[in-house]
Amino acid sequence: MMIVVMKADAGVKQTGAVITKVQQLGFEPHLSQGEKKTIIGMIGNGAKFDPQTFLAMPGVENVVPIQQPFKLASREFKKASTVVSLNGTRIGGNKIVIMAGPCAVESRDQLFKAAEVVAEAGASVLRGGAFKPRTSPYSFQGLGEEGLKILREAGDRTGLAVVTEVMSPMDVDLVAAYADILQVGARNMQNYSLLEAVGKITKPVLLKRGLMSTVEELLMAAEYILSNGNPNVILCERGIRSFEKYTRNTLDIAAVPVIKNLSHLPIIVDPSHATGHRYLVAPASLSAIAAGADGLIIEVHPKPEEALSDGAQSLHPEEFAELMSDLCRIAQAVDRVI
Amino acid sequence: MMIVVMKADAGVKQTGAVITKVQQLGFEPHLSQGEKKTIIGMIGNGAKFDPQTFLAMPGVENVVPIQQPFKLASREFKKASTVVSLNGTRIGGNKIVIMAGPCAVESRDQLFKAAEVVAEAGASVLRGGAFKPRTSPYSFQGLGEEGLKILREAGDRTGLAVVTEVMSPMDVDLVAAYADILQVGARNMQNYSLLEAVGKITKPVLLKRGLMSTVEELLMAAEYILSNGNPNVILCERGIRSFEKYTRNTLDIAAVPVIKNLSHLPIIVDPSHATGHRYLVAPASLSAIAAGADGLIIEVHPKPEEALSDGAQSLHPEEFAELMSDLCRIAQAVDRVI
Amino acid sequence: MMIVVMKADAGVKQTGAVITKVQQLGFEPHLSQGEKKTIIGMIGNGAKFDPQTFLAMPGVENVVPIQQPFKLASREFKKASTVVSLNGTRIGGNKIVIMAGPCAVESRDQLFKAAEVVAEAGASVLRGGAFKPRTSPYSFQGLGEEGLKILREAGDRTGLAVVTEVMSPMDVDLVAAYADILQVGARNMQNYSLLEAVGKITKPVLLKRGLMSTVEELLMAAEYILSNGNPNVILCERGIRSFEKYTRNTLDIAAVPVIKNLSHLPIIVDPSHATGHRYLVAPASLSAIAAGADGLIIEVHPKPEEALSDGAQSLHPEEFAELMSDLCRIAQAVDRVI
Amino acid sequence: MMIVVMKADAGVKQTGAVITKVQQLGFEPHLSQGEKKTIIGMIGNGAKFDPQTFLAMPGVENVVPIQQPFKLASREFKKASTVVSLNGTRIGGNKIVIMAGPCAVESRDQLFKAAEVVAEAGASVLRGGAFKPRTSPYSFQGLGEEGLKILREAGDRTGLAVVTEVMSPMDVDLVAAYADILQVGARNMQNYSLLEAVGKITKPVLLKRGLMSTVEELLMAAEYILSNGNPNVILCERGIRSFEKYTRNTLDIAAVPVIKNLSHLPIIVDPSHATGHRYLVAPASLSAIAAGADGLIIEVHPKPEEALSDGAQSLHPEEFAELMSDLCRIAQAVDRVI
Repeated sequence: MMIVVMKADAGVKQTGAVITKVQQLGFEPHLSQGEKKTIIGMIGNGAKFDPQTFLAMPGVENVVPIQQPFKLASREFKKASTVVSLNGTRIGGNKIVIMAGPCAVESRDQLFKAAEVVAEAGASVLRGGAFKPRTSPYSFQGLGEEGLKILREAGDRTGLAVVTEVMSPMDVDLVAAYADILQVGARNMQNYSLLEAVGKITKPVLLKRGLMSTVEELLMAAEYILSNGNPNVILCERGIRSFEKYTRNTLDIAAVPVIKNLSHLPIIVDPSHATGHRYLVAPASLSAIAAGADGLIIEVHPKPEEALSDGAQSLHPEEFAELMSDLCRIAQAVDRVI
Repeated sequence: MMIVVMKADAGVKQTGAVITKVQQLGFEPHLSQGEKKTIIGMIGNGAKFDPQTFLAMPGVENVVPIQQPFKLASREFKKASTVVSLNGTRIGGNKIVIMAGPCAVESRDQLFKAAEVVAEAGASVLRGGAFKPRTSPYSFQGLGEEGLKILREAGDRTGLAVVTEVMSPMDVDLVAAYADILQVGARNMQNYSLLEAVGKITKPVLLKRGLMSTVEELLMAAEYILSNGNPNVILCERGIRSFEKYTRNTLDIAAVPVIKNLSHLPIIVDPSHATGHRYLVAPASLSAIAAGADGLIIEVHPKPEEALSDGAQSLHPEEFAELMSDLCRIAQAVDRVI
Repeated sequence: MMIVVMKADAGVKQTGAVITKVQQLGFEPHLSQGEKKTIIGMIGNGAKFDPQTFLAMPGVENVVPIQQPFKLASREFKKASTVVSLNGTRIGGNKIVIMAGPCAVESRDQLFKAAEVVAEAGASVLRGGAFKPRTSPYSFQGLGEEGLKILREAGDRTGLAVVTEVMSPMDVDLVAAYADILQVGARNMQNYSLLEAVGKITKPVLLKRGLMSTVEELLMAAEYILSNGNPNVILCERGIRSFEKYTRNTLDIAAVPVIKNLSHLPIIVDPSHATGHRYLVAPASLSAIAAGADGLIIEVHPKPEEALSDGAQSLHPEEFAELMSDLCRIAQAVDRVI
Repeated sequence: MMIVVMKADAGVKQTGAVITKVQQLGFEPHLSQGEKKTIIGMIGNGAKFDPQTFLAMPGVENVVPIQQPFKLASREFKKASTVVSLNGTRIGGNKIVIMAGPCAVESRDQLFKAAEVVAEAGASVLRGGAFKPRTSPYSFQGLGEEGLKILREAGDRTGLAVVTEVMSPMDVDLVAAYADILQVGARNMQNYSLLEAVGKITKPVLLKRGLMSTVEELLMAAEYILSNGNPNVILCERGIRSFEKYTRNTLDIAAVPVIKNLSHLPIIVDPSHATGHRYLVAPASLSAIAAGADGLIIEVHPKPEEALSDGAQSLHPEEFAELMSDLCRIAQAVDRVI
C-alpha cells in the first residue's frame, strides 16, 4: 500500500484533489488527519502509477510505501498514537483506563452492586457479558438483550461507560444500541464477517487477541475493522496458549511494547483471563502498566464464589480497591495517571 | 447428561413413551437409532429425577450418565461409528473418502479442469473455496456466489459431491443451496453463531480443528452442531500450531486414533494445510490412512504455480494421481478400500 | 515426604534427637533453620512409621506431609523466603539485585569496560560467559578458563560478584574456583548429572528455566540441587518458547508470582533472552520488578554492534544507566529498593 | 562451510593432496567416502581462499558451499542416505529396524523375559534403561552398571543388539563397554559436553529430539557428534510438547519426511513416548512407517502393570507380536521389509 503525506500547511482543497486522484486511479482513499499532518492511504488494487503523479500536486509532501502487512494499523501509516474518545473517557492517552466488572451479567442486583463497587474504586468503564461464548453448548450462555439492558442501566446510574461482547454480525446493531464499546472476543478474532460488521459502525471496538494468534495476526484483524471504516480500535492482550499449567493462559507481556512499536492503536491487558487465578491478577496488572499498557480490563464480582462463570479469577470488591491504589503508584512511576 | 438405552426389541411405541417422559421432565430428547439399539439423550436443564422413573418403563434397558464434557459426540452416547451419507458417497465406513481440488475457485476453466483431474484419479468429493477467510483484508477473498455456481456446475458435470466453506451464519442458506458439504474452517471452529446455524440444517458439515484447539475443544464444537439438531458432522485434523518452522503447521497424527476412541464421528485429515509443502503431502497422506483416518482433503491445482492461494502446498495433477495409487496400497494394508 | 516441625523453643538437643530418629527410620534428614522455627525434612524411602513416633518426642510441634511433587523447594517445607547471601549481596530480600554484563567474555578490554559500566550504574553482580552453549559447533564457544580468569579479575577490580555458566559436571570445580555464582543454563535445566554436581558444592547456583519447561519442572530441577545438599538456589525466568515471532522467546511474567507462591526460593528475570530485542529490554525489566521479581540479569555490552553473540539484545552502557534509574522508581512503587 | 567434491576416478593420492591443502589453509578436513564419490568437508575458521586453489588440483570436480546451518548432517554434504551398521543389523537401509524392550532394566528376570518376547516377535535391538533421567530426584533412577550388565547378557543370549541411555560425559566409556548403541535422551539433546563425548567414540549414537526442540536444532545437535568424528548417528522423533492434553506429547509425524529431505541420517520414531498411551502405540507406529521412518523404538514390558516407569505406554507381549505383523503389511505397502 502507498500513502500520500500532505504538507503541514496543505489546505482542504489540495487534500480533496489528492483524494479525487486516488479514486480515479481505482483505489479507495483512507484519510487520517493527525494534529500536524494529513495522510491519505490508498487501499485496494488500483492502476499502476508513477509517484510523480502525486508529488507534482500542490500540498503533497511525499508518497511512501508501507512495508508492514498491516497498513492502516501501522505506525508507518500514522506516527501519533491513536486516542479513542467516548464521552469523557480517552483511551490511549496519558491517563490509564480501567475497565472492570463481572464476567457475565447475571442479574440486576449483581450488576448494580458490581457497578457501584468498580465506580467507587475509580474504574471508568463497566464490563459484563450478555452474550457469552462458552466452550460447552450446555453452559450458561448469557442473558442476551435482557443483559444488555441491565448493563446500560447500570452504566447510566454510575456514569460508567459500558463494554460488552458481540458474537455475531447479526447482533452488531443490537449490541451497539446499548454498549459504548463493542468487544470482539478472543475466539472470534479471525471471524471476518464479524470484523467487517463492527468495521461498519463507528462505536469503539475492543479487539481481543486470539489465544492462538500472533501479534501480526492481531494487527491484521484490526486492519479488517479499520479498512471497513471504523478507526476506533482498542487492542487487548489477554494471554496466549502455552504448555504451562499453573496459569490458565500465558500473559505475553512483551506484546505490549511490541504493539506500541508497530502500531498507533491503544493496547490494554486482561490480567484475569491471562492468568485465571485471583492471586495473580494484581501482579499481572502491575506488570502490564509497567510495560506500557494503556489500560486494564479486570473481572470483579460482588461475590466471586457465587459467579456463574470465571469465579476463580474474579476479584473481590476490596481486592479491587486495593489493587487500584497499588496501580496508582506504578502509574506514577512510569509518568502516567489513573 | 443422562441417556436412556432401549432394549434391542423395544418398539416405536415404547420409545415414544420414553421421549414423552423426557420432555415432561423438561429435557430435550435426542434420538440416536443404531443398527441394534435405540438411545435417547436428555439435553438441557430439566427436573431432577429418579432413574427408576425410566427403568420401570417397558422397553428400557438402562439409564446411564455420560462422563465426557461432550455428550452427543461421544462414543459413550453412541458406540457404533457414524457414517455420513451423501448421494452415493459414505463417509466413516470402510471405504476411505478422498476430497480434492484447489484452495479457491478462481475461474470456470480452472475449476472444471481441476474437477476432471481429481475425478479421473478417483476422488469422490470436489473441494474449492468461494468464500475465503484471508489473514489480510487486501488478499483475494474468493468469488462468492459466482464461485458457488461454478463449483456446483463442476460437481454436476463430473458426478463429484462438492464441499466449500461458509464463513458467516448469514451465508449458511446460500452455501447450502449449492454445496453438498458445508465446511466450517479452522479460524471459525469456536464461532458459535456459525456452529448453531449449521446445526440447524441437515446437510453434512465438515468441521476443521482450530490450529490451536485441543481435541476436546473440537469435540465440544461438534457438540454445538449436534445439539442443534444436525447429526451429520465430519471432523477434520488439519495441523496445529507449534514452534517447528519447517512445516506450516504440525500434523497431530495421534489425534486420529484419539478421536476414534472418544467419538463416533468420522475424522479425515487435511495433509495440505497440515504441512504447507507439496513434498510433504504424500507422506502425510499415507501416514493419516495408516493411523486410521476415514478420508483426506487434499489441495490439487491444474497449475499450482499460478494459484491465487496456497500454490506451494497444492499437488500437480500427476502427483495426485500417483498419490492415489500409493494410497490404495496403504488402505489395503489396513483392510480398507479407496 | 514428611516434615517434622519443631516448636519455637525447641533446643539443639531435642532437634538432634529427631534427626537421629529420622536416620534410624532410614530417611535422610534435611534441616531448615528459619528465624522462628526449625524444620526437618525426611528424604528417601525409609520405613513406614506412625506420626506419633515424632509427636511424642520433646520439642516436636507437628508432623506434616508435603503435597507438592517438589519438597525442599516448596513453601510448604519452608514458609520464609530464602535469602541467598554472597559477600555483601543478598538475593531474595527487600533489595532487588541487578546482574549485568556481556553475553560472553570476549577479551580483557571488553570485560573490564563492561564491568566498570555496570558497576557505575549500580549493578552488584557481573555476568559473562566463559563456556558458551551454542547451537552450532562452529560458533564461538567461549574463552574457557582464560575467560574465567578475566571475569574474576574484573569482579575483583570493581567489587562486583561474578556469575558465569557451567556446562559439564566435570567443570564444576573449575568454575567454582573463579565464580561467585554458577549458572546452569536453560538447555541444561534437566541435565541431571550437572544438577547433582552443583548440588554438591555450596556456592549459589543460578538455575535458568528451560525454554519449554513448566514451572513445576523448574522446581523439580531445583529439587535435584537442594536434595544433594546445596540450599543456595536462585531461579531465573528467561522466556519460554511459543508461536509468537516478534520476540525471541515469550517472557512468562506470571511465572514470577506463581513461583513466589509455590516456593521460598528467590526468582529473577532475564529480560534480554526473554525478548531478544534491545528495545524490549527496558519494558520487560520494569514489568518483572512490578510483578515481584527479586532481581534481573541483563545483557550489557560496551559496543553491542561488535558483540560476538547476542548483540541485538544487549544494551548500550547509556541505555543501561537510564534503565537503572527507571527501575529505581518502579522498585519504590512496590516498596523495594535497588 | 565449503566442500571439495572429488571426481569419480580420483585416486588416494589426489584426495590426500586435497586434504593436505585443506589443513594448510587452517581447516579441519572431514572425509566422506560415498559409493561413487569422495567428498572433503572443510570445518572451522581457516584462511580465506580462492576456489580456484582447489579446482586447479588434479582429481577435483567441484568446490561448493553448504547453505544449511548444519553441514556434515546435510544432504548437501552427502547425497546418499547413511546406513549405520552394527553386527548384522543395518539402520537406514531398506529394512526397517525395530528396537523394543522395557523403559527400565528392573531385574534379570524382567529383562530376560522381555528380551525373549521381543526377539521372538522379530525385533533386532533390545532397549532398556540403566541410567534413568527422572523429573524427580526421588523416583527410581535405574540400576546403573548392574543394569548394563543385565542388558548385555540379555542381548548376548538372544542375539539382539542393545541400546541404552547415557546421561553424563563421565559415563560414556562405561556405557560404551556394554551397549551397542548409546542413546542421548531428549532432555540432553543440547547437553553439548555429552554430545562431544559421544562424538569421540565410534559406536552408533541414537539421538532423540528434545521435546522442546526444532528439527533444525536436532540436526545441529547431530552436527556436534559428527564434527567430533563419529559418523554413526541415528535420529529419533519422540514427540514434541504442545497444548494437546489427550496425549503425553505430540508426535510430529511430518518431521520424518522433513528430515529425510534435509539430511542423510537415518530417522526412527518412538511411538511410546510420543503418545504416552498403550492404545495409541500401534496407530502411531503404522503411521511412522507409512511416513518413511527407518525404524521404531517401542516400549514392551512382560507385565506393564508392574513396570517401575512408563507402564501405561508399554505394550503387552501379545500386543507387540500383533503390531509386528501389522507393521509387516504397512512396510510392504511402502516397498520395505521388516
